[in-house]
This record gives sequence, structure tokens and C-alpha cells, in this order.
Amino acid sequence: MNLQNKSIVELEVLCDEIRERILAVVSKNGGHLSSTLGATELIVAMHRVFDSKKDPFIFDVSHQSYAHKLLTGRWDEFDTLRQFGGICGYTKPSESEDDYFVAGHSSTSISLGVGAAKAIALKGEQDERIPVVMIGDGSMTAGMVYEALNELGDRKYPMIIILNDNEMSIAKPIGAVSRMLSSAMASPFYQRFKKTTENFVDNFGESARYIAKRMEESLKLVTPGIMFEEMDIDYIGPVDGHNLTQLIEIFETAKKMKKPVIIHAQTIKGKGYEIAEGKEEKWHGVGPFDISSGSSAKKSSLKSATQIYTESLLYLCKNNDKIVGATAAMPSGTGLSALMEKYPNRFWDVAIAEQHAVTSMAALAREGFKPFCTIYSTFLQRAYDQVIHDTCLMDLPVVFALDRAGIVGEDGETHQGVFDVSFLRAIPNMTLFAPRDEKSFHQAMAFAAQYEHPCSLRYPRGAFIDTEALPESAPFVLPKSQLLREADGDILFIGYGNGVGRAYETAKLLDIPVTILDLRFVKPLDEAMLREMAKRHKKWFVFSDTSKMGGVGSALLEFLAKEKIKDVELESFEYEDVFITHGDTKVVEESLGILPEQLASKIYFI
Amino acid sequence: MNLQNKSIVELEVLCDEIRERILAVVSKNGGHLSSTLGATELIVAMHRVFDSKKDPFIFDVSHQSYAHKLLTGRWDEFDTLRQFGGICGYTKPSESEDDYFVAGHSSTSISLGVGAAKAIALKGEQDERIPVVMIGDGSMTAGMVYEALNELGDRKYPMIIILNDNEMSIAKPIGAVSRMLSSAMASPFYQRFKKTTENFVDNFGESARYIAKRMEESLKLVTPGIMFEEMDIDYIGPVDGHNLTQLIEIFETAKKMKKPVIIHAQTIKGKGYEIAEGKEEKWHGVGPFDISSGSSAKKSSLKSATQIYTESLLYLCKNNDKIVGATAAMPSGTGLSALMEKYPNRFWDVAIAEQHAVTSMAALAREGFKPFCTIYSTFLQRAYDQVIHDTCLMDLPVVFALDRAGIVGEDGETHQGVFDVSFLRAIPNMTLFAPRDEKSFHQAMAFAAQYEHPCSLRYPRGAFIDTEALPESAPFVLPKSQLLREADGDILFIGYGNGVGRAYETAKLLDIPVTILDLRFVKPLDEAMLREMAKRHKKWFVFSDTSKMGGVGSALLEFLAKEKIKDVELESFEYEDVFITHGDTKVVEESLGILPEQLASKIYFI
Repeated sequence: MNLQNKSIVELEVLCDEIRERILAVVSKNGGHLSSTLGATELIVAMHRVFDSKKDPFIFDVSHQSYAHKLLTGRWDEFDTLRQFGGICGYTKPSESEDDYFVAGHSSTSISLGVGAAKAIALKGEQDERIPVVMIGDGSMTAGMVYEALNELGDRKYPMIIILNDNEMSIAKPIGAVSRMLSSAMASPFYQRFKKTTENFVDNFGESARYIAKRMEESLKLVTPGIMFEEMDIDYIGPVDGHNLTQLIEIFETAKKMKKPVIIHAQTIKGKGYEIAEGKEEKWHGVGPFDISSGSSAKKSSLKSATQIYTESLLYLCKNNDKIVGATAAMPSGTGLSALMEKYPNRFWDVAIAEQHAVTSMAALAREGFKPFCTIYSTFLQRAYDQVIHDTCLMDLPVVFALDRAGIVGEDGETHQGVFDVSFLRAIPNMTLFAPRDEKSFHQAMAFAAQYEHPCSLRYPRGAFIDTEALPESAPFVLPKSQLLREADGDILFIGYGNGVGRAYETAKLLDIPVTILDLRFVKPLDEAMLREMAKRHKKWFVFSDTSKMGGVGSALLEFLAKEKIKDVELESFEYEDVFITHGDTKVVEESLGILPEQLASKIYFI
Repeated sequence: MNLQNKSIVELEVLCDEIRERILAVVSKNGGHLSSTLGATELIVAMHRVFDSKKDPFIFDVSHQSYAHKLLTGRWDEFDTLRQFGGICGYTKPSESEDDYFVAGHSSTSISLGVGAAKAIALKGEQDERIPVVMIGDGSMTAGMVYEALNELGDRKYPMIIILNDNEMSIAKPIGAVSRMLSSAMASPFYQRFKKTTENFVDNFGESARYIAKRMEESLKLVTPGIMFEEMDIDYIGPVDGHNLTQLIEIFETAKKMKKPVIIHAQTIKGKGYEIAEGKEEKWHGVGPFDISSGSSAKKSSLKSATQIYTESLLYLCKNNDKIVGATAAMPSGTGLSALMEKYPNRFWDVAIAEQHAVTSMAALAREGFKPFCTIYSTFLQRAYDQVIHDTCLMDLPVVFALDRAGIVGEDGETHQGVFDVSFLRAIPNMTLFAPRDEKSFHQAMAFAAQYEHPCSLRYPRGAFIDTEALPESAPFVLPKSQLLREADGDILFIGYGNGVGRAYETAKLLDIPVTILDLRFVKPLDEAMLREMAKRHKKWFVFSDTSKMGGVGSALLEFLAKEKIKDVELESFEYEDVFITHGDTKVVEESLGILPEQLASKIYFI
């Protein structure tokens, strides 16, 4: 959409229309709401002053980019937001040339901007193009941002960084940086300065008072940006992020400066939808809801794995005061908020800072505590070395509780929790296991709480697949599997975690005898049981919500090779070697051919 | 060693003795020299004021901790530094109760300090214990430090952070942070302030001059620390890091403050060994040398893989101006310094900042460039999510050139490059391959330079195992392997990268016919060739310097399972599931039973 010739009033009307459209679609499809509403004027001003056809528009995390999508040819198609085959909830170059980069994980934007700026310099296009980065205050806590700012301050590539400060990332703002941004006046430096000047003024009368006043005022402007200025990055702000006139003016100015500039814009999350304004976490990411009342359209009646996790951990904490834990800015998503409330001294939200979350928990383990590092599977990728180098090398008893393991649905390819078994299994001293239902989850947690080495358990987004008709889960005992159903015949189904449910569903559809084993531990393996199984059943099928490469099937193949068992044929129904797209989980699974009915018919033809 | 009753003069003598001891041992065994010499007084002062039996002494990277080792019961044993079974070159709790944590990778210390501080608070031991962190200025560039400072500034746990500032990390100091530390006077904030005050002074005469002067002075003290102060962490400095009297005084003061304090100490790298003083990179990590002349005891006459890499990349750059590259603070180690010298606009040292290195290179790839992200295998663990989320998801043609892949020798378990195949193979769109000698390296690089997807090649520390007697390497063509020797009989040796040399050495020791295949690509596999091999040879042996779990053998097992090939027996000689200790590479390999003669005898008994 060409915004060059529109008046400010017309642009303001456009902002209203954008908000209306976002509300209409998100209330129907679910999605990210409050951050995207808050960023509407910023994005309209970006499109007025810059050109996404040539200037790299880089949205950090990019869940706030809906307005950008609407302005770049996706107004009608926006109906399909987050649906299978439809518009992605994040920027995605394969969807539009106006989307510069994929971003579903936070804090990558300034690095991308630096890379883009280097490319622009090499191509000699500095007069025509400039990277325009939008980053929220919540993303400023992750270390990667400072790595990039550090080089940027050194090399001084022209770049516009719009700091979208709604004093509220996903959860409550945490940490020094957030506080620094939140108020110029409260800064300790400013306070110290003020006190000094006041003392002088008392002693030296009117002329000194005037000087002091002037100095104070000039400092006021600069104070919240001192840290950036120290890094040699120009700072403008704070500015009202909903004032289009001012934003356009400042963007124009910044564009001409030809150096790195941070524009600190203050916005209100949920702006324009009264029910959401100021209700940070609740309205960050939402399911379908009723616009007029704000109430959720429907809720699942099934208990989510996250809820079971919370209950279990609350129970364990009662009798064990060595248990501590951390989340990286996902207190509600991971279910840790209940723990933080009940045990404020033992559970920490360390902000978006996965590396620090893991390593600080490792130190607590070193001191004799039992940390539960609670993190989405996809986000543990951001702290891989901290798991290896800071935890497993010293064999420290940190528990990695991996929520959202498997397909996550509408968030899509950036958020799928599919790689964890592959990347964790190779680490010495690590133990990997997974529950399959509510009872086994409690038992797995009881195991984790007393285990004296690093370990990791994984569980799905939402509810487990129902396996009630199967025998009850037995307590977790290293490295024991549980044989759930024994049948004559060659076929053995081996399930891991939620894969047990899939195995069971598939078995129900077959009229041939099927033995079902709940593997429970993928590292170490229950070798005695597997050896026994290899004697009795010669066709093994593996069910697990994990990547096939290096995954559960691969672990079993390594075992069979080691044992020189040649007469067992193994087929794994884990995920193939492609990134998995967004959409309703069932629909996505169907597209992958892993629904029980699809697997059942595959097995018939084997 | 109890330092409480020693006079300053005695402590100074002790510092001399420590330096002498370090020089004597490092000149014999090799090791880290200049940073450890520079930190001698800091460490002696630490031991005077704090107690490593109770206060967590946390050394960042910990290659500067030799003096600490000497002071804590390892004076005599220090002779065995970095030798197999001897003293580790880094802190290691299993070696001494005075070593709080393992640290071979940088920038973890403040996170560890925060974790330790949380533990101390929970235990109610704040009056008896305080974490004492020592971190070099070079480590301050990695983002993890800011993640930890951010929480520390917020929660205000008592902690001493000794910033050992030698204005010189491993390579040249890079970035805004480094510059900020290097000079109080040059800071733009200070300069701006000074200018303002001068203007006022001109206008308002004597009393204003006095005020301005006082303000200027108070700012002078605080300026280099403004960033920390902004984060609400008290800052003291800069102080002379070789002045024991001053250091002890300041440490005593800081200890009493009961809050987070950063002590900014300026030190000289190589202090006390004139030949090394000021010669930063050369004397950071050294092999054996002659103390009086400073010349290396002996140099390998074999060309290292790193040298070949440099030559190859220089050659490719001549004809392709799209090639760019980055190193994370290892310009000399990775051989990229020659590139930075010749093409200063196309190759960047981004400082210790692996995450930023990868993601900024991904952006350059998005812009049509061909980045060679050159990084040690072990350090790529620090940017795993950036490889997945920022590179492979968009299928961008970044080349990950992994130096130090395999066993690295004396640096030991923190630095072994053994996990890369396991953690990279599961990522969709990734291609993995490896050269086996000089010629194949050039060919692999030629392949990488024109390849349009993410890919990664790995090569060993030092020289390749000699395979000159084998047929010449053929050009790399996706996904072709190269059959090097065909023999009748069941036995097939499959080598990957430097594993080809090991396969060849082993084959030479056997008087049975052996077929040798250079696998070249582990992802994707040369399925046509492998299918053919499976028909002709039924006993496969895998040779690769990688973890067995999820490694090269595992990839081959997945292939055999997929093809339902049951009559092939596969044994992999990759690394077992343990962390591999330090020592001479050959000695370490012998301890693992993977020397060619050991493998040959294993094969006889199969």
C-alpha cells in the first residue's frame, strides 16, 4: 500500500482499519494480539518513511508484524492467519518479498540488521537502502542483542533501531535493562546527578541554579539512552509511539543521520482494544475470543501437560526445599507462575535469557539444589552449549523440563519442538525420558526430583493423547521401559512420550496382534527388555514426536547394531527431514501422514 | 596456601615465584601464558581477602587460573599441566575442591556467580560466603554476560566481579564495550559533558567554573562504569591490577559492601616475562618454547588443516567477490587473519559472539553473499539455534567451516569437537561433508563456494592423517562418495573426514582384504554407492572423529533400516558416550582404544 500521499488524518484512519482487521481475524483464528495492536502506528510510520521493497524491514520475534502484513498485499488473505497453508504468524520471505527474514525466536534482529548493513555497504547501496529494525523491550534482555550492538557501535553502520517499549514484554519486565528503559527520571545516575546539583545550588545561588537546571534538562533527555550512547549508538527518545506526526518526523530525521540510531518509542500494548490494554500476559498470545466481551470462545476440557507439570512440581516442592527452578520469560506458558507465586525465593523468571537460565541453574545444582529448568523444547536450542559445557560436563543434577515438545500447531516452523532428542542424546551424562499421560508424568517428575545427574523430560503442547484403556503407568525406574500389551506375532510398537498414545491409537485400528512397549527412557535404553523383545518380535515400529535423524529410532538402531541383532526390521514414524509448517496440529499431522489411520494403513502394506 | 599472615613484600615475592613456576612449566608443556601472568597479583589478592574453600572462586574461561592452582595445593603437580592424567589447563572441581566450576568456554562466569549467589541466599550464608568472579575484558563481548548482569542488577545479590582488563582479549579488542573500558576520558558522554561545562564556564565566571570542575571530576571517576551503574551494579575503578596493596584494600572494601560490585582492574598481559609483554595474540596460548629467547621449541613440519583452509579461501576469494566471512575472536586460530588482512571489508572478527557471528552471516547470505562462518566445532555449540532458526529455516547458503573437529589434545574436554555431526545432522536443509587431505580440502571448499544451501565441513586440529598412498581425491559432487580401494571379501571401511586416514592406517595393519570408501557426505548420503557396497560387503566399519550417538554410523544405520538391508553388520569406531579428557592426542586416542593398531586387533577378533 502506498502511504506517501496520505495525510496524517488518513493515516490515522488507516491505523483504525488495521486494528479492526487484526481484531476480527485474531478473535477468530487466535494469534498474537496486544503487541501487534500496540505497534500499529510504528509500522504505518515505517511504511511511510521507508520502503520494505528495498529497505530491510526486520521485526524482532515478528509476532508484532501483522500490520506490516496487512500493508503489503495480504489484507484479504489475512483471514487465513496461522491456518494450515495460510498466512504465517511471523514474517516469512517465502510468503512475501516484503518479509525480509524469518523470526519466531526473539532477539535476532540487530544481528540481522548488522549483517544487512554490511551487505549494503559492500554493494555500495548506502544511499538507497537502510536496515530498519523493530525490537520490543522484552527482547532486549537476550545476550545476542548486546553482541550485535557491540559490533554496531564499533563499526557505525547506518541503521534505524526502533525500540518498541511497552514496558511489558510477554511477562512482567525483568532486569536492569527494562528498568533503565522504563523511566528516565528514576535512573540512579540521574538521581545522583540531581542530588549533586542541588547541593551546589544551595551553596552558590542563582547563576549556579541556572547552570544546574540546564544541565539537568539536557541530562533528562539523554539519560535512558546513556547505555546506548556509551556504545556509541545515537539515541532519540523517549517518543510517543502512537503519535504519527512525531514518529514520521523522527524517522525522517534518523534516516538522514546515516549512522546507527536507536529510537525509543513508548507504546501501549493492546492499544485500541480497551479490554486488552494494560493486560499484558493474558492478551499476548490468544485463542479465538468474543470481541465485545473478551471472553475465550472455548476452552479445552482436557488437562494440558503443562498443568500436570505445575501440579506435580508444586507437590514435590512441599516435601523438598532443595527444589528450585527457572523460566526464561515464559512463566505462564511453562506453568511456572504458580511456583513463583508460592515459592518466590526458589523460582525465577530470568527474562528472555535461556543461556543464563541454564548456567545459573547449573550453579545452584553445584550448591546442592535441585533445579528444574523449565523451557520450551525449541528454546533450549538457544542454550545448547550451556547444557553441554556448564551442566553435563560436571554431571550436575539439573532437570530440563521441555514443554511444547513435538508439533506445536499454529506457531509453526520456528516453534516446533522436534530436535531435542537428536541434540541432547549425544551429550555424555545426560538421561532422557518422557511421560505418556498424567500418572506417568507425576511418576517421571518423582524420578527427576531424586535423580542425581542431568536429565531431560519432554511433554507435548496441550493434552496427552488418551491412553486410559492401557495398563496404568508404573513408577519410573532407570532405565526401565513398561510393556503395556503383549501379543503373539512379529509386530512391536515402541512409543516414546506422547508417541505411546499414537502407537495405541494406531494399534486399535489394526486387526492384527500388536505388542506395545512404552520405552520411557531413550537414554539409556532398557537393553534387557529390548533384547527380549528382539527375540519375540521381528517388526518394530517407533512412535515419537521427534526428528527421525538421530532420534528415538536411531537410538534403537544403534542398540540393534551393537547387539548384532540382524533379524529385526525397524521402521520409525518420527518426523522426516523437513521443517514442519504451521496450522492446526491434526491438519499438520495429516499432511505428514502420521495420523493413526494413516499409519495403520501404512503398516498393512508393509 | 595461607596468605593471611604474609606482608606485602612477601606477597610480592610470592608473585615472582608464581610467575617463575608458570614460565618454567608452560615453556615445557605449552599452555596459556600471557593472561595467566597478567592475573597473578589479582589472584594472590583474591586469596588474601577471600577463601576459595568457601567463597565460590569463578574464573571466566579459566585459562588465567594457573596462579590459583599453584596456591591451592598443586604446586608440585603443576609439572603435569595439560598432560594426560595431569593437571587440567582449566579449573576442574574433580581435580580440587578449590575449583568451583568447569570453564573452558568464555563468558559463563557471571551467570554462575548469580546462581551461586541465589544458593547462598537460600542457605542463609550471606554473612560467610560471597561469589568472587574474575572475567577478562575479552569475555565481556558475549551476550550471556549481559543476560546475567541484567538479572544481577535487578536482584542485587552480593557478588564481587573482578574485571581483568588487559585491553586485549585473545585477539585485538573489538567493539563498543572494549572501547568503553579502554579509556574513561575518551567516552563520548564525558566529552559531551565536558564541552557543555566549558561553555557554561565561559559565560558564568569563577563560581560556575568551580562547580563545573567538581562535577567533571566526579564524572571522571564514574564514567567508564556508567553502563554498569545504569544496570545498578556498583563500579570501582579503574585500578592498577599489579598493585597488591591497592588491590587488597579494594577487595576488602568491596567485600563489606554486600551488593554486586564490579572492580575494574587494568593489567598487562604477559606481565613479568618481558618477551611476552604486549605481544597479545602470539603469547596467549603457546607450545613449548625457550624461555631466554622466546623461540618455539619445535614446529610441526606438516601443514595444518587450518593452513589449507586459509590458502583455499584466499584462492576462492580472488575470483568471487561475493565471498565474505566471520570469526568469533579467533582470527589466528581459524586462519582467518590472512583473509581479514587481504580483504578487510569482507572478513570480520565479531569478538566472542558466536550467536551474532552466525546470524549476521545469515543476513549477508540473504543479500546474495556467500559467507564462510569459521568457527571451532566446540564453539558452534554456542550458536546452535542461530544455525537452525536463522540459517537453515530459510535455506541460506552459509558455509560453516568447523575447525578443531575431533580430539583437540591438551585443551581437553571443554574443547573437544566431537558433537557437531550429531547436532547438525538433524537440521533440515543442512548438508554435511568433510575433506580427508589437502587436495580434497581444496575440492570441498570449491564445492562449498558454489553450493546454494547451508552446509558444514569439518577438519581436524593440526594435520590430516597422511593418506598419500591412496588414490587422489576427486572433486566433491553432491552426494558422491569416493571408492578408494576395492577388495574382495566382506570388509568395508567407511571413513569420514580425517577418519579416512585412520581407516587407511588400520587397513595397512591387516592382512585381510579391505575395501575403503571415503564417505565425504554424511548428509545426504551417497545411497547408490552404499546400496552397491551392501551387496558386495557385509561387514562395515565406520571411522570418524565424531560422537557415536547420532553420528556417522548412526546415519548409515538409518539408511540400512530404510532400505531394509538386514545382512550388513555395522560397527562404528566413533567416540563412545563419555567426555574425553586432555592430553597429547595420540595418548588420549590410545586410552580410548582407537589407535590403528588397537582397531586392527579388534577387527581380527570380530
